[in-house]
Amino acid sequence: MSYFTGVPTIEYEGARSTNPFAFKHYDPGAVVAGKTMQEHLRFAVAYWHTLTASGADPFGAGTAVRPWDRFTGLDLAKARVEAAFELIAKLKVPFFCFHDRDIAPEGDTLQETNRNLDVIVASIKEYMKSTGTKLLWNTANMFTHPRFVHGAGTTNNADVYAYAAAQIKKGLEVGKELGAENYVFWGGREGYESLLHTDMQLELDNLARLYRMALDYADEIGFKAQFLIEPKPKEPTKHQYDFDAATTIAFLQHYGLKDRFKLNLEANHATLAGHTFEHELRTARMHGVLGSLDANQGDMLLGWDTDEFPTDLYATTLTMYEVLQNGGLGNGGINFDAKVRRGSFEPDDLFHAHIAGMDAYAKGLRVAAKLIEDRVFEDVIDRRYASFKEGIGRDIVSGKATLASLEQYALQHETIRNESGRQERLKAILNQYLLSE
Amino acid sequence: MSYFTGVPTIEYEGARSTNPFAFKHYDPGAVVAGKTMQEHLRFAVAYWHTLTASGADPFGAGTAVRPWDRFTGLDLAKARVEAAFELIAKLKVPFFCFHDRDIAPEGDTLQETNRNLDVIVASIKEYMKSTGTKLLWNTANMFTHPRFVHGAGTTNNADVYAYAAAQIKKGLEVGKELGAENYVFWGGREGYESLLHTDMQLELDNLARLYRMALDYADEIGFKAQFLIEPKPKEPTKHQYDFDAATTIAFLQHYGLKDRFKLNLEANHATLAGHTFEHELRTARMHGVLGSLDANQGDMLLGWDTDEFPTDLYATTLTMYEVLQNGGLGNGGINFDAKVRRGSFEPDDLFHAHIAGMDAYAKGLRVAAKLIEDRVFEDVIDRRYASFKEGIGRDIVSGKATLASLEQYALQHETIRNESGRQERLKAILNQYLLSE
Amino acid sequence: MSYFTGVPTIEYEGARSTNPFAFKHYDPGAVVAGKTMQEHLRFAVAYWHTLTASGADPFGAGTAVRPWDRFTGLDLAKARVEAAFELIAKLKVPFFCFHDRDIAPEGDTLQETNRNLDVIVASIKEYMKSTGTKLLWNTANMFTHPRFVHGAGTTNNADVYAYAAAQIKKGLEVGKELGAENYVFWGGREGYESLLHTDMQLELDNLARLYRMALDYADEIGFKAQFLIEPKPKEPTKHQYDFDAATTIAFLQHYGLKDRFKLNLEANHATLAGHTFEHELRTARMHGVLGSLDANQGDMLLGWDTDEFPTDLYATTLTMYEVLQNGGLGNGGINFDAKVRRGSFEPDDLFHAHIAGMDAYAKGLRVAAKLIEDRVFEDVIDRRYASFKEGIGRDIVSGKATLASLEQYALQHETIRNESGRQERLKAILNQYLLSE
Amino acid sequence: MSYFTGVPTIEYEGARSTNPFAFKHYDPGAVVAGKTMQEHLRFAVAYWHTLTASGADPFGAGTAVRPWDRFTGLDLAKARVEAAFELIAKLKVPFFCFHDRDIAPEGDTLQETNRNLDVIVASIKEYMKSTGTKLLWNTANMFTHPRFVHGAGTTNNADVYAYAAAQIKKGLEVGKELGAENYVFWGGREGYESLLHTDMQLELDNLARLYRMALDYADEIGFKAQFLIEPKPKEPTKHQYDFDAATTIAFLQHYGLKDRFKLNLEANHATLAGHTFEHELRTARMHGVLGSLDANQGDMLLGWDTDEFPTDLYATTLTMYEVLQNGGLGNGGINFDAKVRRGSFEPDDLFHAHIAGMDAYAKGLRVAAKLIEDRVFEDVIDRRYASFKEGIGRDIVSGKATLASLEQYALQHETIRNESGRQERLKAILNQYLLSE
Repeated sequence: MSYFTGVPTIEYEGARSTNPFAFKHYDPGAVVAGKTMQEHLRFAVAYWHTLTASGADPFGAGTAVRPWDRFTGLDLAKARVEAAFELIAKLKVPFFCFHDRDIAPEGDTLQETNRNLDVIVASIKEYMKSTGTKLLWNTANMFTHPRFVHGAGTTNNADVYAYAAAQIKKGLEVGKELGAENYVFWGGREGYESLLHTDMQLELDNLARLYRMALDYADEIGFKAQFLIEPKPKEPTKHQYDFDAATTIAFLQHYGLKDRFKLNLEANHATLAGHTFEHELRTARMHGVLGSLDANQGDMLLGWDTDEFPTDLYATTLTMYEVLQNGGLGNGGINFDAKVRRGSFEPDDLFHAHIAGMDAYAKGLRVAAKLIEDRVFEDVIDRRYASFKEGIGRDIVSGKATLASLEQYALQHETIRNESGRQERLKAILNQYLLSE
Repeated sequence: MSYFTGVPTIEYEGARSTNPFAFKHYDPGAVVAGKTMQEHLRFAVAYWHTLTASGADPFGAGTAVRPWDRFTGLDLAKARVEAAFELIAKLKVPFFCFHDRDIAPEGDTLQETNRNLDVIVASIKEYMKSTGTKLLWNTANMFTHPRFVHGAGTTNNADVYAYAAAQIKKGLEVGKELGAENYVFWGGREGYESLLHTDMQLELDNLARLYRMALDYADEIGFKAQFLIEPKPKEPTKHQYDFDAATTIAFLQHYGLKDRFKLNLEANHATLAGHTFEHELRTARMHGVLGSLDANQGDMLLGWDTDEFPTDLYATTLTMYEVLQNGGLGNGGINFDAKVRRGSFEPDDLFHAHIAGMDAYAKGLRVAAKLIEDRVFEDVIDRRYASFKEGIGRDIVSGKATLASLEQYALQHETIRNESGRQERLKAILNQYLLSE
Repeated sequence: MSYFTGVPTIEYEGARSTNPFAFKHYDPGAVVAGKTMQEHLRFAVAYWHTLTASGADPFGAGTAVRPWDRFTGLDLAKARVEAAFELIAKLKVPFFCFHDRDIAPEGDTLQETNRNLDVIVASIKEYMKSTGTKLLWNTANMFTHPRFVHGAGTTNNADVYAYAAAQIKKGLEVGKELGAENYVFWGGREGYESLLHTDMQLELDNLARLYRMALDYADEIGFKAQFLIEPKPKEPTKHQYDFDAATTIAFLQHYGLKDRFKLNLEANHATLAGHTFEHELRTARMHGVLGSLDANQGDMLLGWDTDEFPTDLYATTLTMYEVLQNGGLGNGGINFDAKVRRGSFEPDDLFHAHIAGMDAYAKGLRVAAKLIEDRVFEDVIDRRYASFKEGIGRDIVSGKATLASLEQYALQHETIRNESGRQERLKAILNQYLLSE
Repeated sequence: MSYFTGVPTIEYEGARSTNPFAFKHYDPGAVVAGKTMQEHLRFAVAYWHTLTASGADPFGAGTAVRPWDRFTGLDLAKARVEAAFELIAKLKVPFFCFHDRDIAPEGDTLQETNRNLDVIVASIKEYMKSTGTKLLWNTANMFTHPRFVHGAGTTNNADVYAYAAAQIKKGLEVGKELGAENYVFWGGREGYESLLHTDMQLELDNLARLYRMALDYADEIGFKAQFLIEPKPKEPTKHQYDFDAATTIAFLQHYGLKDRFKLNLEANHATLAGHTFEHELRTARMHGVLGSLDANQGDMLLGWDTDEFPTDLYATTLTMYEVLQNGGLGNGGINFDAKVRRGSFEPDDLFHAHIAGMDAYAKGLRVAAKLIEDRVFEDVIDRRYASFKEGIGRDIVSGKATLASLEQYALQHETIRNESGRQERLKAILNQYLLSE
């Protein structure tokens, strides 16, 4: 059966197409910078926003019209799987992502919950096989249920911690079963509401312990996925522990976990932390931990996670610029952790939104590739830092210089000439590439 | 001669005094939590804001009426020294802090600049000796002069880097000469304006190189000060490299510098980074790098560094709570990196402002000490996390647990009972301590 | 029956009481500034947060443990009424507030919904009579149901508008029936998500039309309540039309509605708009439209409506300062539009939270009254603006001056002397009053 | 003589030109939506940022290399005039704007200051005549000098108020002399730092009085310019009185000034107030007070006025969309109230920056015109609100409906059908127009 009867398989029709159900920039097989667009853009559908979410917000009930909502319980879970693979196929998206509780309902006991999971995982596995769709990553939802009110890996309650551990164990097994390329930890309730009653040291130590147990178990069962942590600064807790890329890197370094983890970076989370997305990517890239992307965008004037589908071409261009400079994302991909607006409640909106996001990323890829091909910014940077390639600059970089040798040099070179950074000119060039590519 | 003729030496008169030139809470010799208040509260006057600043802002010229402004050049510098020690003595502040360029003017050459410094340093040294005042820390101003337009340790211009190195060398020598207890790096222009023309990797590598050279030179000349880095997220550059405590810790860990550096944390910088000040202190404390404080406060509704004198008693209480839990600040202190408002332009305002700040910190110390003495929050925390001291919780903490053992436990303990976190009650208790102590 | 069996009626025990179920500052009968505290502090319980809310947030399910949750449907609604009046009595709160949908569930038709309302309203009326509790205000919830997805009074769909009108009509009737002292409009979905598809002019015109119809109907049925609009800048919509006090005043002036409406100001909404709460009160006060207060507080570092119980004594003091200067709130009161944290999920927390808030306001009242009694800030202001009471200043205020006469004066009075604004000193005085009153 | 020897007159070369000194989108004589681009885009050079500013910021000295800086005093003022008209001519900008103190230095007395002004105004008048350049607006700088520390029109000091009045009088005379099309009030220090010492009511009353005097004097001398107020929410004062468009409209309405004033809206000020620029334009447009634009852009992650040259094509498109819908700006124009970055300190950067801004606005104009020509969003809006053109909707709009008639309707029309708002689709269409036009 079809849940999206009016929607065709989306084809590439070029920038001037006015067909709302067509790609304008995303041409899967077209070659850009030495690879096809679909090889560069390992898009994934986010199960929670697209198949499960209702459009509820803190001030209102769900609005989403979803043809599968006539079912309940496991039947609903099964219907969502069908709908998911229909949507994925029509959009030609190669990957998807889920939390355990997105795909199957909790039962009365953990055992029953796991049985529910097994039923749906088996169904998903078959669909994956028959369609060639792959699992970019899976994860465990350890934030929705009331038991996690004070955290999961950072709870004050050892029983809750044990429950979370059990959930992760199952998550790793499911990931292995479905060949997930990554396994993600997003610290939904891993943070604090108030320091007045929080043992932050114990909470972080325990979180690191949980990660180590997860690594051990993955090794034990031969689950080869890349482990990812997803930073976020606030919401739901007042202060989330994985504030941003740098904070998460400090954590990984401190607990000796940096060689086993990479980061799953999200655009809207960067915004909430006061960073551009490209800053977060650059930070991760410099530390060799750029793992995967949650592709969405926030509203720059709103202070919460709006998780909008990405349409800002500046952002997608600068994101793909960092990705290309990183040599791609390896196991990672570009997951649409984005939700249609509450007012965009019809099933078609799910397609419009994904097409908008995929086209924005495709355009960003094309522009970024051209910028790199022409060495636009790289040549600027080479010239700007040229003084570190010779003379005193080379001594500095090579470690030969000392404060004394540099003072000696400075005393003899009183006249210093700087050059303009030319930011306005560079922004004009970026506009030109955006418009002409 | 006196620059503050109408102002007496400030005495403690108790909470009900209406004398504006009296301490209401700061009683230097009173014993709190086993030490005198002056031992706990190692206050410092910030030379730049209090002796040098004019009250200029981006929209207007200086307003400050300063009796020493009738002088110019080195005479002005000398007059400021006199005024500084008069103010310090009247306020009974034990420490002060400065940037090199605060105390002496630049000359036509670096050599002349250094000679100017030497003259003033000699004068300061004598005042320190005769008054017993000590230097909490000194630092080099590598952000005001146009030569640092693109950074100092993170410049793209090797000549500028050399100049900065020369300035640090001199700074270390001055620090040694004056017995500075700490040496601070605040990255005034160490950040970027745009990634389009920035080699962030080279810039950070170079910054680490500069720190290593500084450590080597300090060791060479036997300068024993604690090295401190002061985080700030933005302003003047769009993105400062030392965004917050966690980012700076990540940097120190990455470059192997963590054992030689601590942090100089500033309240207003925490605000700009989206953190409470106590969060920054806790983060540093957990990493053993809580070094010293820049005591000021920002305006929670304004997005720039307002550097107000600290008067919020909640903030000073929670700050001193962390300081007491840290066993004090060691070499560090509480530096009033705060400026009188542009509209508070008379000399007396400098006293009113320092008294307000010192009293706020003194009150905060008293409340925090009482909270700890009564184990108000510690008992709450002990009870909240009790489950990690026995049974499965102890297994988790001791490293004995695995995902499998925890799953086993979870399957057998389906009923989980959490307890309220009681935040509202704890906030009421905090109010009660604030009002009754 | 009792829903709060362990909780006694709350008594005043003074600032040093350690009984968590006692008032420390709120002594209902004590006289402050010529009236009893309970006359000044017309507290109200907010039905939605305290009786109806579950603790759900965008990332998690409800956590609240509520003894009445064993019921469903109308029985649940009835149980909530019983619980409400028990809580109100124990807290000695004189007022309460509700939305129509808080107190009774929607039925299958509007007719049935209204019948449900009638049943509960009758029950409430009896409780009000027997206990003496009064209704501060009621309002219609026109934001939760999916029908209001694109607004109510500012919807694009005339059928929805008609439905909203019907709801308001019933709301006015209910208000009259229960003797509500005010009727509130909070524009839950009255705003826009994107200008790309919004006819802002028509939406605002229609909103004004709805207000006029409401006034007409209230007059028709003889409902004498004060009408109030509650500003909020954002959330749930990207841009709420009633952004802040000034925006709402502009609207009221433009549509000729200012003489019939006042404002219901909320602390957290002020924060989200970038204002202090006292700024909003002052703005309304100057326009004669200070109506009533929603007493809560936001988190200054979070960008959404956290609706915390008010405990910041600076805020409550400055709020009560404006209220006293306004000669009180008239028909208005102080409604705890505040929710216990999601982690404070036990029934007792409802009491702890209200006690914390009531005490914070009571303390604020005492401090504000003393500040006014001593004319602390008023004397400062009188002195600061003295130049407008004589000479050229009086000419300016009286309207006698012209640009030419002022130029004449300025040319003859070249030397201008300003005086320090003494902000630091004033903040120290505020602290002193806070601690000593 | 030439101050910009290497810079040619800028010509239009089309989107693919790589000449940095050429327009890519701004083709002055090309016709768009019925008028030439130069008729639509009444660009103005801002004298203060482009001719006077040094690049100083709160943390550093000026960096700007300006060939005219070898002069001082009146000679410097004259050199700047020459440089201004050379730059204006080369950029083909039709207008410029200035504050009195931008163009001529203060003397020792107001009389001397005015004489300085007269000298420069005479010189400017000649240049205007010979080149055809026009004055978009002038204004008085009443915020830089220390005398305005507590405000100008809202000062607490009547002498300062008189001085400000004298300055405005002269400003109106200068405006008349030079044929200024508008006269602007930006409330540089018109706001407050703390309510503790502020008589907000008197300050605002006085401000209104000053505006009335200005109107009277303009009428008296026959100066026909449009009066404009420029809103800004904060900076330099904590709370500026003219927070945003709506606040300023409330002020104008309250004091009966709305028919004589329009608004000069600035993009970066909108950002600081938490609004999009198009929101501010729409608000002003609906009230018939859209006067003129200060074209710049802020950094969405920084909390101060960065005043960057506008390059964001989304923003310029949506801005020009509102302008076109407004039927243009009348007397108003598009003033580049924007400054080159401190690191862009060479004279050429002034050209690169203006070209970037002019091209961004030209492209925005083209895209907006095409969107309107194709009725893209207008058709969407017509369809969305169609229900208000017939039946019950028409009754609502015509004023015929009452709560009772609407309730009657609602009871008979229980089934309400909303349609998706299709925001994601509309954003994709906006991208398509941006890229293809």
